[in-house]
Amino acid sequence: MTQYDTLFDPVQVGPVTAPNRFYQVPHACGMGHLRPQAHAAMRGTKARGGWGVVCTEECEIHPSTDLSPYPEQRLWDERDIPALSLMVDAVHREGSLAGIELVHNGHMSGNLYTRLPVLTVSERQLADGYPKMARTMDKSDIRELRRWHRTAARNAKQAGFNIIYVYAGHEMTLPQHFLLNRYNQRTDEYGGSLENRTRLIRELLEETQEEVGDTCAVALRLALDENLGAGGMQAQDEGRAVVELLADLPDLWDVNVSDWTNDTLSSRFEPNEGAQVDYMSFVRQTTGKPVVGVGRYSSPDLMVKLVREGVLDFIGAARPSIADPYLPTKIREGRIDDIRECIGCNICASCEGFGVPIRCTQNPTMGEEWRRGWDPEVIDSKVSDASCLVVGSGPAGLECALQLGRRGYDVTLAEARSELGGRALLESTLKGLSPWKRVVDNRLYELSQMPNVYMFTESTVDADMVTELGTEHVFVATGATWRNDGTGRTHYAPMNWHKSQEILTPDDIMNGVQPQGRIVIYDDDHGYMGGTLATHLADLNPVFLSTASIVAPFTTFTLEQDKLQSELTERGLDLQLSAKICDTEKNALMVSSVYGGTTRTIPCDTLILVTARQANMALATSLREAGHAIDLIGDALAPGLIADATHSGHLAARSLEESPSKIAAAPFRREMTERPYPQTTPYLKGAAE
Amino acid sequence: MTQYDTLFDPVQVGPVTAPNRFYQVPHACGMGHLRPQAHAAMRGTKARGGWGVVCTEECEIHPSTDLSPYPEQRLWDERDIPALSLMVDAVHREGSLAGIELVHNGHMSGNLYTRLPVLTVSERQLADGYPKMARTMDKSDIRELRRWHRTAARNAKQAGFNIIYVYAGHEMTLPQHFLLNRYNQRTDEYGGSLENRTRLIRELLEETQEEVGDTCAVALRLALDENLGAGGMQAQDEGRAVVELLADLPDLWDVNVSDWTNDTLSSRFEPNEGAQVDYMSFVRQTTGKPVVGVGRYSSPDLMVKLVREGVLDFIGAARPSIADPYLPTKIREGRIDDIRECIGCNICASCEGFGVPIRCTQNPTMGEEWRRGWDPEVIDSKVSDASCLVVGSGPAGLECALQLGRRGYDVTLAEARSELGGRALLESTLKGLSPWKRVVDNRLYELSQMPNVYMFTESTVDADMVTELGTEHVFVATGATWRNDGTGRTHYAPMNWHKSQEILTPDDIMNGVQPQGRIVIYDDDHGYMGGTLATHLADLNPVFLSTASIVAPFTTFTLEQDKLQSELTERGLDLQLSAKICDTEKNALMVSSVYGGTTRTIPCDTLILVTARQANMALATSLREAGHAIDLIGDALAPGLIADATHSGHLAARSLEESPSKIAAAPFRREMTERPYPQTTPYLKGAAE
Repeated sequence: MTQYDTLFDPVQVGPVTAPNRFYQVPHACGMGHLRPQAHAAMRGTKARGGWGVVCTEECEIHPSTDLSPYPEQRLWDERDIPALSLMVDAVHREGSLAGIELVHNGHMSGNLYTRLPVLTVSERQLADGYPKMARTMDKSDIRELRRWHRTAARNAKQAGFNIIYVYAGHEMTLPQHFLLNRYNQRTDEYGGSLENRTRLIRELLEETQEEVGDTCAVALRLALDENLGAGGMQAQDEGRAVVELLADLPDLWDVNVSDWTNDTLSSRFEPNEGAQVDYMSFVRQTTGKPVVGVGRYSSPDLMVKLVREGVLDFIGAARPSIADPYLPTKIREGRIDDIRECIGCNICASCEGFGVPIRCTQNPTMGEEWRRGWDPEVIDSKVSDASCLVVGSGPAGLECALQLGRRGYDVTLAEARSELGGRALLESTLKGLSPWKRVVDNRLYELSQMPNVYMFTESTVDADMVTELGTEHVFVATGATWRNDGTGRTHYAPMNWHKSQEILTPDDIMNGVQPQGRIVIYDDDHGYMGGTLATHLADLNPVFLSTASIVAPFTTFTLEQDKLQSELTERGLDLQLSAKICDTEKNALMVSSVYGGTTRTIPCDTLILVTARQANMALATSLREAGHAIDLIGDALAPGLIADATHSGHLAARSLEESPSKIAAAPFRREMTERPYPQTTPYLKGAAE
Repeated sequence: MTQYDTLFDPVQVGPVTAPNRFYQVPHACGMGHLRPQAHAAMRGTKARGGWGVVCTEECEIHPSTDLSPYPEQRLWDERDIPALSLMVDAVHREGSLAGIELVHNGHMSGNLYTRLPVLTVSERQLADGYPKMARTMDKSDIRELRRWHRTAARNAKQAGFNIIYVYAGHEMTLPQHFLLNRYNQRTDEYGGSLENRTRLIRELLEETQEEVGDTCAVALRLALDENLGAGGMQAQDEGRAVVELLADLPDLWDVNVSDWTNDTLSSRFEPNEGAQVDYMSFVRQTTGKPVVGVGRYSSPDLMVKLVREGVLDFIGAARPSIADPYLPTKIREGRIDDIRECIGCNICASCEGFGVPIRCTQNPTMGEEWRRGWDPEVIDSKVSDASCLVVGSGPAGLECALQLGRRGYDVTLAEARSELGGRALLESTLKGLSPWKRVVDNRLYELSQMPNVYMFTESTVDADMVTELGTEHVFVATGATWRNDGTGRTHYAPMNWHKSQEILTPDDIMNGVQPQGRIVIYDDDHGYMGGTLATHLADLNPVFLSTASIVAPFTTFTLEQDKLQSELTERGLDLQLSAKICDTEKNALMVSSVYGGTTRTIPCDTLILVTARQANMALATSLREAGHAIDLIGDALAPGLIADATHSGHLAARSLEESPSKIAAAPFRREMTERPYPQTTPYLKGAAE
């Protein structure tokens, strides 16, 4: 009996019972119909980690909601059942319930693969930039939609799902578009009053219950608030009214805010857990049915409080279940300090935009469950008594040392600076990025428990020292340095700077250098760093000059771009976009559009170059020259995201003393298109399949 | 014996012989490894149409060149052979040769799926906006690359290919990056002199020949010029020198210009055939090996001339083979007027960017060969003596009437205006779009040959008339109208305009209205129309105001965006981007950033709204009210691209009097991920599979 016991109460949902209150809400994962085995293994890992309910991402119910090339789930027809059953079986095997989020995306789907006409509540453009209009659904279209939804529900039941969703959230689905005033301009019984605008949701709920309600719970995922003020739906107004209208009709309320960028706020814009409580705390009082809500919860005390106060019946999670699939188990076992906390960087979400399988900065096994057979809590023991040296304690070095330590190897971790953490520590000093320090803190805590790991700061390693130490395995994680010569996307070669300008890089800023005078930040990198420095230094009123047409394009994928550029715009920063430096003169830059045209001059005393990074290869090179075999990892191998670094460190630790034949085989398993055709050509099956 | 006979000479290429001079060069198709059956059928159709050589798109040779989510071909290992063999078999079945374009894309591939480190000649950013550096390949990396290429060549031979490429083009591949001065900063034997920079290409050619040269020809695809002036490789300089260095080493030279936007110039920027002749005419004099080049060739006279003059041995084509897979057959049979000419709109190329199967404005069967079983020259005969009425002669109406006519139905085509062609005719009056008129011309020519098709202009149709005519099948292709109320992506509801401003739409401009005074073009559509009007009206010096951050974002996908915005920038147009209209006042617009912030004022006498289109539904509605069953097609169904309209008209004609069971089944076949897992749940196979 602990203070957290209530989190492990079973909860009745319609005709089914969840084994506990941990509920992985539907979330995108870039696997979908293309990668059913990867998907099953990933969701299955969460169930194994203790999540009592595990859901799919959105699941297209018909070819007229085709999100290609983004691989969502599909239940276009019965042929899709086996792929989804795989996931159901993986979740059931662990005693958890499986939920499926049926969706019709209306004008948010381009139907670029199927080429079917796009449907919406009232004629408007597709959302994705393809110059095509979605057409207004007539009555027969609405009847068809309901029939598709009913058929998909039946097929979902056949696949074995326990909870079936009607999805009206994230500004991404037809039922929500019908609900929202600004989209719905209809004059029939589906438009006008709130009751009319709710009609489609009600019909879908009723018909799903009729079709599968005997054995399946029917959930409604609803965005209560759009964070648009009076320009959109508000929780205290129509949001509440919709809940009152539907009250006990769904078996479960899964409530959040809209759009996706507001629901999945990065820690930069919402550092705290439980940010959605104010929007949804009324729901539990309005319905007799259980309620699930999200808020990047990883504190069990807060979870218990919300259950006790009658705010939530289920602790909903997407990101915390990605960062730590074993979060419920760790709480049950009282291992609170072992929880790998989400840092809110939204790299997980970015994978959806790139159309590739999900990954996680904190949990490098995410997305690798099937193809590499990784589990975050399971790793092979060491195969020899060899000792290991890891040079550099940034994200790659820390992760590598941690996993080597877990395998039982003797590990020495050497850091040249006075504090462990490398890049993750430095970047966490920038405005908005302090939660990123968890990358260091979580790992240092675990490393500090290990008697076989020795950590040293202010320890510069060279080739002689390595020879002397006689360590069998050397991992070089010496990181990368921001370039100060202007080389980047636009400039292939170093630029010549006028001597009157001070040239700084992000490394200088993170190391505490104060830029002076008239400051220009030059972003020719297009990642998150340029925009982050702009907010960090906003009080100094820098000019933000970028070769991109928007601030920090990559942050579109982490759902931050609009908020970032809006913040800088509202603060009145001078944003000069699609612009490049052509030349420099005394205290000034000559600048033109990247599209050519005339040149203008910008005063500049300090130029902060955010252009490119350079791997720190000096140690690796000297070790190789001295004949040492080394493993190069993280930014020293190829400068990337922190998520790339932890993955690199993890992979190196798992691969140590792996059998050469396994390494020589394909690096991982992959899923391929079915081959119904005669295999006229003989071929070998790869070792990994 | 005709004047075109020489085009049908067999041509020896290394150890193989092509049956004629028609050569489908490698081109992207958005099918790749995900859709092997669709790919085989599409390439097979071209072979059936007479192309003597048919190639794949680029084919990744290793997981370290992973272009996910864009589906290219793959030969990562032997497991990929069967999918490629399908294509080979489809091409061989028609007596043609099959070619494969092996590729390593270096830093142009993100490896976002495989998560392997990205390789390049000299450390630099990935090309795709992911904040990650590609690392400098060391000697062992280069040896590995060569080994992968050799292995892929061996597997390609096993798959049955006759021509195997080394690919150094489009600024997209490692061998070209090694070649180019601005990428290659190496100080070893792969950097510095041109000979050193060519070393990798030479090694790949030699090793491919060694590995498969006994039975396969080895082709080199090389970009001779980058259209960057002295900033890049130039044909008369290093381009020529590379050809001289390698001379007779490849069995075939496939030469073009770089990057892809320069090679695949839209007709807007290059209206003429043969635009690359000046760059490559020296090649044939420098090598004893056959040469293939492209230039949107569809005129057989020009083809013959280039062969006779010793410029080309093969007539290379990507787009002309897409617009008309039967082009060679039509030339052979002397049916020159039947050739469906490419209009150079680059919708085919856009599909690559969207990651979906290729399509074509002129040839609606492109991409539908397998999944719908369409062939451009084959269509089922009519199944009854029913008569058909097609109302509207835009792209959808013309295509529908044409295919109904080919099926043998009696067709009446009624056009309200004085000329046939609808939207295609109108848009072709805009600057740069005149080749789009071929959509009309080609179809009118064919229709004019048909005794069973009756065409009427200045014929307005209403419900009474349809009742009176007693036509069994009515196709409504009444098109769409640009909105004049401001509703668009940003504005959900009509705006209130100050009366002092004249409001025009693209329809007004295409109908000859002359805008007066200070003109503002407002693009809230983001398709091609806003940018097209800006160039069309550039002499009037309009302000171009757009809610997008670049001019005409969609044209990025048609490879035109950079050129379009550069043209407007060089002309000095006032481009106000990421900006929206907040309000209007007397002869002025109040404008702010779409990211908020302060409001500014722009003088405006005439406002041209490019915001959204509205389907013309009046006739359809009145016909339905009068009890007529109708087929709504093209923009009247859902306003889209001209390519969407021709596809819609084509589909409707093919579907007429189709068996209800076939229509009720899945709309098309689809390829799914293989299921190596036990099928625990019974499922039905769809009727279409």
